[in-house]
Amino acid sequence: MAEQPSSLLAALAAVVGDAHVLTAAADTAPYVAEWRGHYPGIARAVVRPADTGQVAAVVRLCAEAGVPVVPQGGNTGLVGGSTPDDSGGEIVISLGRMTAVRNVDPAGNSMTLEAGCTILAAQQAAAEYRRLFPLSLASEGSATIGGALSTNAGGEQVLRYGNTRDLALGLEVVLADGRVLDALTTLRKDNTGYDLKQLFIGAEGTLGIVTAAAFKLYAMPRQTVTGWVALPEPRAAVDLLAMLTDAVGERVTAFELLGREALDQVLAHATAGMRDPLGGSYPWAVLFDVSETSAALDPTGPVEEVLGRALEQGLATDAALAASGRQAQEFWALREHVPEAQRLHGPSIKHDISVPVTAIPNFIDAAGTALRDAVPGIRIVCFGHVGDGNLHYNQSKPAGMADAAFRARAPDIHDIVHGIAARMHGSISAEHGIGRLKQDAFLRHKSPVAVDLMARVKAALDPQGLFNPGRVLPRARQA
Amino acid sequence: MAEQPSSLLAALAAVVGDAHVLTAAADTAPYVAEWRGHYPGIARAVVRPADTGQVAAVVRLCAEAGVPVVPQGGNTGLVGGSTPDDSGGEIVISLGRMTAVRNVDPAGNSMTLEAGCTILAAQQAAAEYRRLFPLSLASEGSATIGGALSTNAGGEQVLRYGNTRDLALGLEVVLADGRVLDALTTLRKDNTGYDLKQLFIGAEGTLGIVTAAAFKLYAMPRQTVTGWVALPEPRAAVDLLAMLTDAVGERVTAFELLGREALDQVLAHATAGMRDPLGGSYPWAVLFDVSETSAALDPTGPVEEVLGRALEQGLATDAALAASGRQAQEFWALREHVPEAQRLHGPSIKHDISVPVTAIPNFIDAAGTALRDAVPGIRIVCFGHVGDGNLHYNQSKPAGMADAAFRARAPDIHDIVHGIAARMHGSISAEHGIGRLKQDAFLRHKSPVAVDLMARVKAALDPQGLFNPGRVLPRARQA
Repeated sequence: MAEQPSSLLAALAAVVGDAHVLTAAADTAPYVAEWRGHYPGIARAVVRPADTGQVAAVVRLCAEAGVPVVPQGGNTGLVGGSTPDDSGGEIVISLGRMTAVRNVDPAGNSMTLEAGCTILAAQQAAAEYRRLFPLSLASEGSATIGGALSTNAGGEQVLRYGNTRDLALGLEVVLADGRVLDALTTLRKDNTGYDLKQLFIGAEGTLGIVTAAAFKLYAMPRQTVTGWVALPEPRAAVDLLAMLTDAVGERVTAFELLGREALDQVLAHATAGMRDPLGGSYPWAVLFDVSETSAALDPTGPVEEVLGRALEQGLATDAALAASGRQAQEFWALREHVPEAQRLHGPSIKHDISVPVTAIPNFIDAAGTALRDAVPGIRIVCFGHVGDGNLHYNQSKPAGMADAAFRARAPDIHDIVHGIAARMHGSISAEHGIGRLKQDAFLRHKSPVAVDLMARVKAALDPQGLFNPGRVLPRARQA
Repeated sequence: MAEQPSSLLAALAAVVGDAHVLTAAADTAPYVAEWRGHYPGIARAVVRPADTGQVAAVVRLCAEAGVPVVPQGGNTGLVGGSTPDDSGGEIVISLGRMTAVRNVDPAGNSMTLEAGCTILAAQQAAAEYRRLFPLSLASEGSATIGGALSTNAGGEQVLRYGNTRDLALGLEVVLADGRVLDALTTLRKDNTGYDLKQLFIGAEGTLGIVTAAAFKLYAMPRQTVTGWVALPEPRAAVDLLAMLTDAVGERVTAFELLGREALDQVLAHATAGMRDPLGGSYPWAVLFDVSETSAALDPTGPVEEVLGRALEQGLATDAALAASGRQAQEFWALREHVPEAQRLHGPSIKHDISVPVTAIPNFIDAAGTALRDAVPGIRIVCFGHVGDGNLHYNQSKPAGMADAAFRARAPDIHDIVHGIAARMHGSISAEHGIGRLKQDAFLRHKSPVAVDLMARVKAALDPQGLFNPGRVLPRARQA
């Protein structure tokens, strides 16, 4: 705690203007809890700087006062990484006013944006030049570039274009002592020393505050073949992905798996236009996009050839290709409606695991068996980005079980799922990060050598331990 | 210096066996100078461990004795990063015996290798499963996986597949205190804390010793369209690249620029089969590959359409597509022969710069003008991976100038070229790294904030400063 909080707030106001130092509960409310209401906290203040210089000045003042800061983008995170704790001592630095698109270079296929720019705005800025900014998330209308970088966000097109880390060319970062690291390069190749930007990507605001970033852009696809395939078992999804990739390469842009329970919940809560593209009650479905840059080369033929072989070999039992863009959107609406349908269905326990792609069938077998043993009748809502080995492997309660009784089993269920993922050399957090929610599981399953190295990096870059303290790494380890 | 060198060598021999602690000059000769004979040094010993456990034990013994170590792969580096200094105090740890392919997972498109495996062996291991390991360098028969990671090697297919960093999924690393970091994952998504592997990629052995790595694999292309295009000026190359990328997307696998002087030197020293694919004396040429995974979709039509438009618009003055695989190899032989032709042509002064792709024409104009002012008659051998903004921008002496007089101008010429690249937000070392050769230029052109952060990371991971000391960062900054 600083000795003179009011003088700190006055100094901050002198930097950003009175209107941008929020302290009244009504003003700070949108910033102090996650959008689902989780992790309600109390901020000493929410500060909204207008530019990089102001961010640096704010950080310098907080560092001098020994006051911890919590960087925040769109506040769409899911792990308690972007909201203040309940001490009332932390200052939230919101990047929400820094929304400028600094530059789009279509011939160089790069774009430079400020951290508070939303992912949707970034997509639109690129699209004006007929270029693709391929990051795409459910929360893209609110989630910001800075948050996406700090959590190394994934999404639906990772298979082809990679995670946020893979899209970043350069960063501008305010360091814990208020200095600015200008690594805002658009170079495709630069081997002059350590690649410092990598330190800040995925660090969840614990090592620096990203204020701007340069990204790769891609050619805009002109055609997309969207398919819905019924499969007898998860193994068939892995085999079908391998066949499709062998046939059409990186054009496989998305490859999503849905289990029967996930699909049943969606169809039970379907809104207009949502219907199963296929008949029958197949146990597993795959939804895929194959996208193509060239207007002249139609990938439909090679995709149909693969599906024909899959049907012959029994890997698929039925398949449909979307006949129009609208139908493709209808296929995708089924996938995108899964989280909402599960919410409508009652309480759920969620996981965001990954395993090597080829281990997915074994993971689904082993985790399903263990969960059904532990909680007879448990319903498993299994869906996700199988092309990246990432499953959102969630559970709904057995019919007739009380909500509270189900929720009480959450720790056991997490342990079972995380333990099996870890045993298969997987991750307990594929795309959502650690924050506060997953710190225990992180410490249990990550190698002590890795955690020690992270603590050393933290101490080297933030020796006072004031940047998002207690997130990712526990406070004790930062001493 | 350790107090008891002979007891250290005995202890090392107890770990790796007498036969693998080399001290006789005849035995250490291949390890103590770069392959071109540069940076001749003296090693206290060359130690050749057989496995990760032995590397860890060797590092632990050296750390206890306070003896600096120099990790070495294929010793094909170009910047003095992999050979010992002339103090006689450094121990070279050669990874050359660790050549195992630990695993190839074709369905998961990943591969796990030991650090001493050559890049060529890695390509072959993947090809046995009809998968592409896309790293490709002139030195691939000798250069190793560990060296490629430690220098974040680039090569000819970066445009499509990225640098070595982009291909790496996981690493196994021996740390400065002899602990082993097992981050040898094949996961496509894992956001559990900081991405530690990034620290060691491109760190030139100053932060850890890479002992094994997991890589992404890709579908093997089934068709390649190779083109040779005559251009009036470098700007046309940037425009043609943008048109081609817009038309066929990531299929543009390589896009190389050659200036007239480079081509003239190659043709003057041509070996059998080397001839200009086009007539006339055009000032600039582009050589490109467009590769295609599908056997059913032929990209030749879209490529011809782009070339037709380029000819109409005056961006290109002539163009030829290779009619066969053999002819494509002949086109590529011209490009690959440039360094050798320049060597045969007399002394040369070399650069490995990058600028944003769209700045390449301005760089070529500005650097050419400044060099011709400084050294009238200087010949500029300009070639490289223009698709990545990376030029190997070299100089040969003016006709009639003495070799020694030309070599004496090297510092001025480096300053001019590096200064112009830096002014254009470029890099003074796009793909070769810093080592010892480029440390002065690195310190002159890198931001002091960046260098300070690197020194902090170095101190955090190698507090004794024993891993490749004086490479990348100067010794003083490691204190």
